[in-house]
Amino acid sequence: MDEPVLLTGAGGRVGQAILRHIGDRFEWRLLDREQLGESKRPDSVPDDDVFATDITDEAGVREAIDGVYAVIHLAGDPRPEAPWDSVLRNNIDGTHTLFQAAVEAGVEKFAFASSNHAVGAYETTDRTPDLYRPEDDFRLNGTELPRPSNLYGVSKATGEILGRYYHDNHDISVVNVRIGNLTEGHPPIDYERGQAMWLSYRDCANLFERCVLADYDYETVYGISDNDRRYYSIERARSVLGYEPTDNSAEYEDEDESDCANGDDD
Amino acid sequence: MDEPVLLTGAGGRVGQAILRHIGDRFEWRLLDREQLGESKRPDSVPDDDVFATDITDEAGVREAIDGVYAVIHLAGDPRPEAPWDSVLRNNIDGTHTLFQAAVEAGVEKFAFASSNHAVGAYETTDRTPDLYRPEDDFRLNGTELPRPSNLYGVSKATGEILGRYYHDNHDISVVNVRIGNLTEGHPPIDYERGQAMWLSYRDCANLFERCVLADYDYETVYGISDNDRRYYSIERARSVLGYEPTDNSAEYEDEDESDCANGDDD
Repeated sequence: MDEPVLLTGAGGRVGQAILRHIGDRFEWRLLDREQLGESKRPDSVPDDDVFATDITDEAGVREAIDGVYAVIHLAGDPRPEAPWDSVLRNNIDGTHTLFQAAVEAGVEKFAFASSNHAVGAYETTDRTPDLYRPEDDFRLNGTELPRPSNLYGVSKATGEILGRYYHDNHDISVVNVRIGNLTEGHPPIDYERGQAMWLSYRDCANLFERCVLADYDYETVYGISDNDRRYYSIERARSVLGYEPTDNSAEYEDEDESDCANGDDD
Repeated sequence: MDEPVLLTGAGGRVGQAILRHIGDRFEWRLLDREQLGESKRPDSVPDDDVFATDITDEAGVREAIDGVYAVIHLAGDPRPEAPWDSVLRNNIDGTHTLFQAAVEAGVEKFAFASSNHAVGAYETTDRTPDLYRPEDDFRLNGTELPRPSNLYGVSKATGEILGRYYHDNHDISVVNVRIGNLTEGHPPIDYERGQAMWLSYRDCANLFERCVLADYDYETVYGISDNDRRYYSIERARSVLGYEPTDNSAEYEDEDESDCANGDDD
């Protein structure tokens, strides 16, 4: 693979997890709405490969995506409580812009950052909090219909369907990664749900690396570490992508690290 | 049920099929982007209950929906080949506007006109044309993931997900009707696919009447007549809604009615 990988939303939390851990693995194009400071990108990426571009800017996206092998599409409004107008524009329309530009440019693979919020309403009161505990065997595995818990989740489920359309009709490999709760260094404290869907930075980077390297058609996988507590299956991520998670939120449960902040869900 | 039923897109083909056959069954509010001529509405509907309103006009929609018991939401760009900007605005944003206004107004039931195009890409070359023939037993039943055949289909699948969100989070009953090929009087000629998904005008009206009267939570059903050729199941429509189709495209197959035009898929 000699062609570059386009990373959108490169300055966000997921983008930074990827660049810190696998920043030396690919030739990158980095796109972010804001100018990406030098501390936020690998030294090996020249200024010409860094784009301060809004993802709804069709011409700007076309320029950034030209000659690219694969796209990791993270850009969008990341707030679970984001209002409709913002997710309509940034997440739904923006993802359409990326897919359309990708197929026109002949991109081979497209990894889409979906979210646990696309299926958050499976966490009904009769299932929780048992769902978050190691002995519970309920699993979502990516074949279930979306059940969004908010309009942000609706926008992510729509991005998955856009991927289905582009895969079926335009011969591009698409993987949706329903990202759990990404925090650096340590799982969220006193938050069982977050521990059940914890994704460590290095596991996040490994998973997206596999999205670039593996062969697949259209897949929906869960992006979590190898947690004892979990209600998302990672079997498809392992078997189809070759994902090899290293971390497990259970390894931190007896510690008292009050200096570690809780993260938001992605 | 003393409160009225709001019908959006009342002047379109589906709306007209409904009004012609069950125009006397409910008290109606009729909404269409264009002024609805008297020939297009039952005599019983006074001018005050007819709204020339774009569905993305939040204030106009709020006025039309006030005090309504149920919504039959048909409005949107109906063209399978509609461009993204139009389906984004009219079908996705417009459907959000309707759902949001519906839950704010305390509407009890919401029937959403989805489409066969939300699942059109299941018709892969290895399945067709056998799929369209009576002896083939492949069936879609509404539990499958969307596979849109065009961006119009993406917009309809998104409307279904909006319904899932509003049902789960706002206690409104929602039914998605994936409408087949609606033609008046006669199934499409020399078009096996259209015959397999034919929906007669009176069956269309019966189905949407049942969407107003039946009790359900969140459902996705197929809107076709009782055709011998079919690859959509109507079991959920029968069992949950009490749909009782009268027509069957097979009854027309030996006829030669060259004066009947073929319809478009909805």
